Amino acid sequence: MNPTLAPNLRSAAILFAPIADDLEAAEKILRDTIDSPEPGVDRLVDHLSHYRGKRLRPALLLLTARACGNLNSAHPVLAAVVEMVHTATLVHDDVLDSADVRRHVQTVNARWGNQASILLGDYLFTHAFHLSASLDDVRACRIIGETTNRVCAGELHQVCERGNLDLSEEAYFNIIDGKTAELTACACRLGALYADSREDVVEHLANYGRYLGLAFQIADDLLDLVGEERVAGKSLGTDLDQKKMTLPLIHFFANADAARAQRVRQWLGTPSPRLRELLRPELEATGSIRYARERALEYSAAAIAELGCLPHSEYRNILEFMADQAVRRDC
Amino acid sequence: MNPTLAPNLRSAAILFAPIADDLEAAEKILRDTIDSPEPGVDRLVDHLSHYRGKRLRPALLLLTARACGNLNSAHPVLAAVVEMVHTATLVHDDVLDSADVRRHVQTVNARWGNQASILLGDYLFTHAFHLSASLDDVRACRIIGETTNRVCAGELHQVCERGNLDLSEEAYFNIIDGKTAELTACACRLGALYADSREDVVEHLANYGRYLGLAFQIADDLLDLVGEERVAGKSLGTDLDQKKMTLPLIHFFANADAARAQRVRQWLGTPSPRLRELLRPELEATGSIRYARERALEYSAAAIAELGCLPHSEYRNILEFMADQAVRRDC
Repeated sequence: MNPTLAPNLRSAAILFAPIADDLEAAEKILRDTIDSPEPGVDRLVDHLSHYRGKRLRPALLLLTARACGNLNSAHPVLAAVVEMVHTATLVHDDVLDSADVRRHVQTVNARWGNQASILLGDYLFTHAFHLSASLDDVRACRIIGETTNRVCAGELHQVCERGNLDLSEEAYFNIIDGKTAELTACACRLGALYADSREDVVEHLANYGRYLGLAFQIADDLLDLVGEERVAGKSLGTDLDQKKMTLPLIHFFANADAARAQRVRQWLGTPSPRLRELLRPELEATGSIRYARERALEYSAAAIAELGCLPHSEYRNILEFMADQAVRRDC
Repeated sequence: MNPTLAPNLRSAAILFAPIADDLEAAEKILRDTIDSPEPGVDRLVDHLSHYRGKRLRPALLLLTARACGNLNSAHPVLAAVVEMVHTATLVHDDVLDSADVRRHVQTVNARWGNQASILLGDYLFTHAFHLSASLDDVRACRIIGETTNRVCAGELHQVCERGNLDLSEEAYFNIIDGKTAELTACACRLGALYADSREDVVEHLANYGRYLGLAFQIADDLLDLVGEERVAGKSLGTDLDQKKMTLPLIHFFANADAARAQRVRQWLGTPSPRLRELLRPELEATGSIRYARERALEYSAAAIAELGCLPHSEYRNILEFMADQAVRRDC
C-alpha cells in the first residue's frame, strides 16, 4: 500500500481489499483510455492521479456485481466509466466553486486556469461515453446518458437556486438526488444489470445506491458547514461562499424565531471568514445540525434495508459497511 | 421565414429549403429533448434559441442522407445530436474565449456567468449522448463518443499551445482537424452510414465533411484576423486576445525577415485594440493572408471532389455549394 496515501484512502484500500484486483483492472482501463499522446494534454491527465479519491463509485459497481454473484468483463469497463464521469464533474465543480485545494493538492483550475479545467472535464465526459459504447449493447450508453444528464440538470438547478435563502427542503432533495445520488444509483444499477440479476434485484440495488448517495451528500454538506479543513483535506465553507443552501440552513429558517432568522440572513448576505464559526451556535439552537444528521442516518438505514434481497457474502457486508460509514464523516 | 433572421440565416433557410421538413423534424427533437421542467434551467435553454446558427451540421447530415437516397427516422435524431454537441462546444468556447457577443446577442456566460455556461454545456453534451443511445444499435454512440472526444482533445491541444508563437503548421492542422473538422466529418459519416451506403461511399462523405470543416475553419480564422465585426455578427480578434496562433501568423513567422518578425512578436506580446489593424499590412507583405486563403480553397476543392461517388441530385448540388461557400466568408 502506498504510504503517502491520506488516511481515508488507506482505509478505502483495506476496505476494498476483496475487490482489489477488480479495481486494479478498472484503473488500468481508465488510465489506458485517458492517456494522451499530446504532452500538454498528458500533463493535465497526469495531474488527475494526485487528485485520485477513494474510488467509491467503481467500488460500488464492482461490489454490487460480486454480491450478485456474477462479475464479468463488462464490469471493470463500466467501473472505469462511472469514475471518469465522477472525475469530470469534480473538475467542473472546482471551476464552479473556485476551489483551490482538493484532496490536499492544488485543483486543475488553480494550477492551469479555467480553460484547461473546462476542456479536461469535457475530455473525461466524452471518453466515458466512448468507453461505454465499446460494450456490445446499448443499455450502458442509455443508462450513462440518462444519469449524466440528470447529474448536470441537478447541478444546473443548484446554480439557478444560488442565493435563494427560501429554498424548500423538497427542492434541496431534488438537487442532491440529481447531482449525487443519481450516479451512485447508476453504479449499483449497472453492477446488478450486467450481472444478469432479476429486475427487482436491479431496482433494489439502484435504490441502495440512491439512498447511500443522499446520506453521503447530507453528511458532506454538514462537513462543509461544521467540519475541520485540516481533517477533511479540502476547502470547506464553499457552500456558504457560493450561497448554496443546505439542509441544516433550510431547517434553521423553517424553525428559527424571527429575530434569530433575521440575524442569520444578514450574516449570509455579508460573507466573512468567521461565518462558519458564527453560524454554528445558531444552527445548534434550532437543532438543525442534529436534524440533518438524523435525515442522513435514515437514508443510511434505508440503503442497508435494500440489501435484504441479496444472499449473505463478504461483498454485501462491505456494501452495508459503506452505507454505515457514509454518515460518519469527519465532522 | 422569420424576417428578423440575420442575412446569413436567411441565406441558409433558402439554401436548405429542399430539406426544410427534415430540419424542422430535427429541430423539434432537439427542443423536446432539452426542454426542462425547472424554470431556471428552462430560461437558460430558451436563451439558446436566440443563439441559434445556420444549422450547418444537421443540414450536412440530412443532405448526405438525402444525397445517398435513403433518409429514414434515425437521421433527424442524429441531426439533433450533432447540433447539440456543436452547441455544447460553443457554450464552453464562449467561457474559454470570454466572448461577450455571439450572433448579435449576449453569450450565456456574459449574461448568467461561467458556472451556468459550464453546466449548460455539460447538460447539452449529456443530452446528446442520451439521445444517440435512443437508437437501436450502438454505432451512433461509438461514433459520437469518439468524435466528441477528438473535438475536446483538439480544443485542449489548442489551449496547451496558447502563446506558443512557434506553433508548427502541422500542429495547427492537427488542432483544427480535431476541434472543427471531426464534427463535420462525423455528421456526413452518420448521414451516409445510417442511409446504409456502401463502406467506400461512407468514407468519401466523411472525407468531404472533414475537408469542408478544414476549409471553413481556416476561413473563420481569417475572419477573426481580418474581418469586420459589424458584418460577422460576433466579437473578432479573440484568437489574438487568447494568443491562439492561426495559419496566416504561422506562415508569416516562417517567411518574414528577422526585423519584421521581431516587430510582430513584440506587438503580439503587448495586446492593443489596434493590433489587428497593425498586423494586416505585415501579413499582406509576406503573402500570408493569400496563402491561408489558398489553403482553404484547396480543401474546398478537395471536399467537392469527394462528392464524385454520389449520383447527381439537388442534394449533392447543395453539398457542393456549401463547400464552395465555406471559404467565401465576409472578410
